[in-house]
Amino acid sequence: MERRNGRRADALRDIKITRNFVKHAEGSVLIEFGDTKVLCNATVEDRVPPFLKGSGSGWVTAEYSMLPRATHTRNQRESAKGKLTGRTHEIQRLIGRSLRAVVDLPALGEKTILIDCDVIQADGGTRTASITGAYVALADAIKLMQERGQIAGNPLREAVAAVSVGIVEGQTLLDLDYPEDSGAEVDMNFVMTSSLRFVEVQGTAEAEPFTLEQMDAMRAHAMGGLKQLFDIQQEALRG
Amino acid sequence: MERRNGRRADALRDIKITRNFVKHAEGSVLIEFGDTKVLCNATVEDRVPPFLKGSGSGWVTAEYSMLPRATHTRNQRESAKGKLTGRTHEIQRLIGRSLRAVVDLPALGEKTILIDCDVIQADGGTRTASITGAYVALADAIKLMQERGQIAGNPLREAVAAVSVGIVEGQTLLDLDYPEDSGAEVDMNFVMTSSLRFVEVQGTAEAEPFTLEQMDAMRAHAMGGLKQLFDIQQEALRG
Amino acid sequence: MERRNGRRADALRDIKITRNFVKHAEGSVLIEFGDTKVLCNATVEDRVPPFLKGSGSGWVTAEYSMLPRATHTRNQRESAKGKLTGRTHEIQRLIGRSLRAVVDLPALGEKTILIDCDVIQADGGTRTASITGAYVALADAIKLMQERGQIAGNPLREAVAAVSVGIVEGQTLLDLDYPEDSGAEVDMNFVMTSSLRFVEVQGTAEAEPFTLEQMDAMRAHAMGGLKQLFDIQQEALRG
Amino acid sequence: MERRNGRRADALRDIKITRNFVKHAEGSVLIEFGDTKVLCNATVEDRVPPFLKGSGSGWVTAEYSMLPRATHTRNQRESAKGKLTGRTHEIQRLIGRSLRAVVDLPALGEKTILIDCDVIQADGGTRTASITGAYVALADAIKLMQERGQIAGNPLREAVAAVSVGIVEGQTLLDLDYPEDSGAEVDMNFVMTSSLRFVEVQGTAEAEPFTLEQMDAMRAHAMGGLKQLFDIQQEALRG
Amino acid sequence: MERRNGRRADALRDIKITRNFVKHAEGSVLIEFGDTKVLCNATVEDRVPPFLKGSGSGWVTAEYSMLPRATHTRNQRESAKGKLTGRTHEIQRLIGRSLRAVVDLPALGEKTILIDCDVIQADGGTRTASITGAYVALADAIKLMQERGQIAGNPLREAVAAVSVGIVEGQTLLDLDYPEDSGAEVDMNFVMTSSLRFVEVQGTAEAEPFTLEQMDAMRAHAMGGLKQLFDIQQEALRG
Amino acid sequence: MERRNGRRADALRDIKITRNFVKHAEGSVLIEFGDTKVLCNATVEDRVPPFLKGSGSGWVTAEYSMLPRATHTRNQRESAKGKLTGRTHEIQRLIGRSLRAVVDLPALGEKTILIDCDVIQADGGTRTASITGAYVALADAIKLMQERGQIAGNPLREAVAAVSVGIVEGQTLLDLDYPEDSGAEVDMNFVMTSSLRFVEVQGTAEAEPFTLEQMDAMRAHAMGGLKQLFDIQQEALRG
Repeated sequence: MERRNGRRADALRDIKITRNFVKHAEGSVLIEFGDTKVLCNATVEDRVPPFLKGSGSGWVTAEYSMLPRATHTRNQRESAKGKLTGRTHEIQRLIGRSLRAVVDLPALGEKTILIDCDVIQADGGTRTASITGAYVALADAIKLMQERGQIAGNPLREAVAAVSVGIVEGQTLLDLDYPEDSGAEVDMNFVMTSSLRFVEVQGTAEAEPFTLEQMDAMRAHAMGGLKQLFDIQQEALRG
Repeated sequence: MERRNGRRADALRDIKITRNFVKHAEGSVLIEFGDTKVLCNATVEDRVPPFLKGSGSGWVTAEYSMLPRATHTRNQRESAKGKLTGRTHEIQRLIGRSLRAVVDLPALGEKTILIDCDVIQADGGTRTASITGAYVALADAIKLMQERGQIAGNPLREAVAAVSVGIVEGQTLLDLDYPEDSGAEVDMNFVMTSSLRFVEVQGTAEAEPFTLEQMDAMRAHAMGGLKQLFDIQQEALRG
Repeated sequence: MERRNGRRADALRDIKITRNFVKHAEGSVLIEFGDTKVLCNATVEDRVPPFLKGSGSGWVTAEYSMLPRATHTRNQRESAKGKLTGRTHEIQRLIGRSLRAVVDLPALGEKTILIDCDVIQADGGTRTASITGAYVALADAIKLMQERGQIAGNPLREAVAAVSVGIVEGQTLLDLDYPEDSGAEVDMNFVMTSSLRFVEVQGTAEAEPFTLEQMDAMRAHAMGGLKQLFDIQQEALRG
Repeated sequence: MERRNGRRADALRDIKITRNFVKHAEGSVLIEFGDTKVLCNATVEDRVPPFLKGSGSGWVTAEYSMLPRATHTRNQRESAKGKLTGRTHEIQRLIGRSLRAVVDLPALGEKTILIDCDVIQADGGTRTASITGAYVALADAIKLMQERGQIAGNPLREAVAAVSVGIVEGQTLLDLDYPEDSGAEVDMNFVMTSSLRFVEVQGTAEAEPFTLEQMDAMRAHAMGGLKQLFDIQQEALRG
Repeated sequence: MERRNGRRADALRDIKITRNFVKHAEGSVLIEFGDTKVLCNATVEDRVPPFLKGSGSGWVTAEYSMLPRATHTRNQRESAKGKLTGRTHEIQRLIGRSLRAVVDLPALGEKTILIDCDVIQADGGTRTASITGAYVALADAIKLMQERGQIAGNPLREAVAAVSVGIVEGQTLLDLDYPEDSGAEVDMNFVMTSSLRFVEVQGTAEAEPFTLEQMDAMRAHAMGGLKQLFDIQQEALRG
Repeated sequence: MERRNGRRADALRDIKITRNFVKHAEGSVLIEFGDTKVLCNATVEDRVPPFLKGSGSGWVTAEYSMLPRATHTRNQRESAKGKLTGRTHEIQRLIGRSLRAVVDLPALGEKTILIDCDVIQADGGTRTASITGAYVALADAIKLMQERGQIAGNPLREAVAAVSVGIVEGQTLLDLDYPEDSGAEVDMNFVMTSSLRFVEVQGTAEAEPFTLEQMDAMRAHAMGGLKQLFDIQQEALRG
């Protein structure tokens, strides 16, 4: 099996991170994993969810959505349907949990950072691109809070990124694009921190259950890709 | 009163039109009126609303939304609220009516062209930018339909564009940005076709009712701005 | 083109205003524009919307609805559909804005006057009848508040009324009934105060865009009709 | 205990039935039980619920609502709340069942008659007034169907009416008004046909459970009132 | 007509009450009326509805639901439909009113006891089984509150139970099972307290209106069954 | 750390499977993992989702819910909230995917088997108990379809079961109960088929990211527990 643009089985797509994409948000990042483009906007709010009121601790959460024509055929807006799909719920909870794993919430004080991940164009891997870009928007928002004197120390403990990996026609492939993803027998997502520890592991057999050996091969590919993503995030934040 | 960047009372902001912004849509235009940025994506669908079934005639409609952080403070998603606000309903009905005014619907055949207008960044005049950009996305979608042999003739009768005008501190100003708009005593929107006829006129006294003379002054400003917008649309479509 | 009952192009239908229609409301007006009958009930409430809390200022707002069988064929209840249509949102926002234009809100104190406009029978022009009748209900509610000593001065600055005008078979007609309205090429609504200044102007080309000259002709008709409506309101309030 | 206007314990309030209240409906009745005023509009529709499709049989159903200011303090619209209350569901199901008890549904053919009961002014007993008025609107709609040749025979088997009865300060009272109803220890509604058979009996102890003897006394009062209501309905339909 | 298992016309089905069915609830009762099985769980909450705040008085309420496959063909979940049906509203209001009739609410203090009635298996009479079982769960919850010192006296004034009765093929039958209920001409439910006074009486003619004599015969059957249910409740609570 | 009842770190809780729990469902299983009790009812329906219509293939899906008082403090019903939570969506999608992994859908024909998993009592691991019990209910429903001649061959390819594993106070534990689960640093769920291949792997760091070595230790525990569950399922189906 030949990948688009002759990409190797263990290679990421071209990754591009543009900071300060919109002017109003406290952090604003357009992240591109090949043709997948997600706008990640961070908002700092002076409130916390009810269960944290009076605790002195902050919160980090996320919302995820696709523009109707991000995809090949148009999707109905969830606002028109009047409710979020199960898929949207799952993804936005995943993004929120991934980000909270690297934030020292009490060090934020009673503030919420909400990251809106809006998919402008979709070509596979929108949830992993969202997590990887949301981290950069979060880092920018926290830097701004520090500059404004809203927080003293640095609540960011380390970086977090995510990548997908799958088995397509029996072959283990890193960072699936949409055509690969639709034909995948197995689909796994790994969310890891820059200390190479796992925050989330999610693997699903779409067609055929997978063996212990296949799981280990996918994990090795993912860890290779994630190390590169941490470098790209670092570079973008220095830029 | 001094306008931002020394803009004259009867001058438009910098207008920029980028075609083919996303790859999946049949027409895709990013339109910028200064800092207001709206993505207008056209989708061609092989169906019509129930009241047109069997009529042989097509339909043109629009949906409008803002990304949560398009604005200075974040807006809750309408999908999370579970329903559209009155403002959203009003705007998307206005965009749809404006576009239909320049389309020969029977010449489309039983097809629907739906234009999604998603505001990426808001700085006043999102509805007028949406209409002006949506026309270009519509024209691109129709051109593609012709190339694909989906329609024979040209269902586009003429161009349509829109602009806002208002009274701010007693002065008649063209194409209000957000700070001007929030302080306006009167706010009017004109939607006109390139044959200089009106499709929609909407004027609202926010603070103080307005006189016949003020209405005429606003109309004159608007017509001047609209003529320039028709030129900009033409140029973009030639590009 | 012959109008029903030999009405002249610039004539209103028979207008009838019945005060104190229901016994519980602080102001209760049944207004009839020909066969269009709208019940306008004013409620005084001891609360204001969140954005006015502590401001010392009051608020005026409106809700609009049609009985299911106000129309020729039955409309589904919005309560059964679980949401308001875009049309309802548009109309009730328009009524509220129109009334607020003639009320000195700080003079109300922190109270809300809510006008419910319920269409009992529809024959065109329900929104203009609603505005015209709502003003009378509002005036009655304010008079009652004065009698009860709830407010000292008079927060009503002037009267407000509304009328529709349109182009039907090329002819400019005042105060369209339903058959005229359904066939209109252009439909405009004017909301004016008794000092002959404009609060709202809304014009829509249903079939064919309209020229500057046509807009001016419609405006002249509307202003003539509105002057008569101010007299009728005055008379009703004296009665 | 003295009743308003010196009414006797076993007396109805003044009952008034006005037919042809709105012009569009197939049957339109304003019924007044004292200060309680309900508008009952009948609509004939060329469809039946799914479970009757192809059965050859028709259907009769009802919807019930209150105008927001029908009551002493304003009620929020159910359309604004986005759902019907349990009370509304209960009442409209009761009205529908009561009407169907006197209609030969197969004789209607595959048509639905829907009665909208909208309370214009409420002063106790809105559900019993609705049933009693809905019957007259139904009879008018059926007469119109016969005149139009939509049905051959007479699907109306007999009349149906309803009345409330209660125990207030230990005394059995017929046709409670709102002040009586709010203070009632027991509240019962009887729906009966003109052959003096029961369609619905609903009794609720609001404060104190009631004995067998009390139930029998209430039933006797109710049957007396219902006989009068059948006469009033007959007279109205002759008028 | 022969009843299942040779049951007599005036006989109850086998009634079985199992206390402490789940471990978390303050009262937990599985009640069986033949093949009808309802789980009644009582929850004590430290809050009251808004209208009771500061009154010193408590509240008792209920919720009712069926598991989707409690019935012969599966019912869609109300959570999936996004709203409760009218039938569910009616039943849970009935259960709540029935329980409140035997509770001295001020003696509860500002606490709410909520009884969840979830039908595990349905075979007719789920609302009467719910009331009868909910009383036992309520009694257990109150006993626990007394043991915990949350209340001093005994807010339970007497017992409450419910039973259905109907006319099937002209015959008066007690405690209808599902096949009997679906074919019933008349269906009545009686809710009574152990002092033999009525809390609720609800009778509906499903097919044919019923006479005074029939109503009296049904009432006699019901009272016989209810006396047995009070004994069974007593015994269960002693157990 | 000591586990309840002296349970070993790699030991399951007592597992109990009761078949034919309710009489109406095509398969009905009460599964207990210690104090966690889930009722799994299978329904066979003569329809498939739209995307399978005409394909000849069947579908297997699941719904998941908790009774309000399954938990220590009561949960509001999702039907009362009017929408499903994200957690419910996630779980029911997981159950459905797990079951489909072992079913040959074309061999079902155009039928849907829907498994309702309703949690009667919760003490941790409700989703893994649901999957393990749902498999047995599914097997019973398929057996019944074979007996009724609705399908020829055997669409069940192998068994599927699920178990949770976690890190609590640094220790790797199998099959967490609620107190363990609430204090867990890491929580993983494994869904495996009886050929020892993986269908789903989901791991979440609740407090601290986890290492490669920890992931491998959890996987080993899980595989041990799953082998026992396959034996228990087999035995129950023979019984």
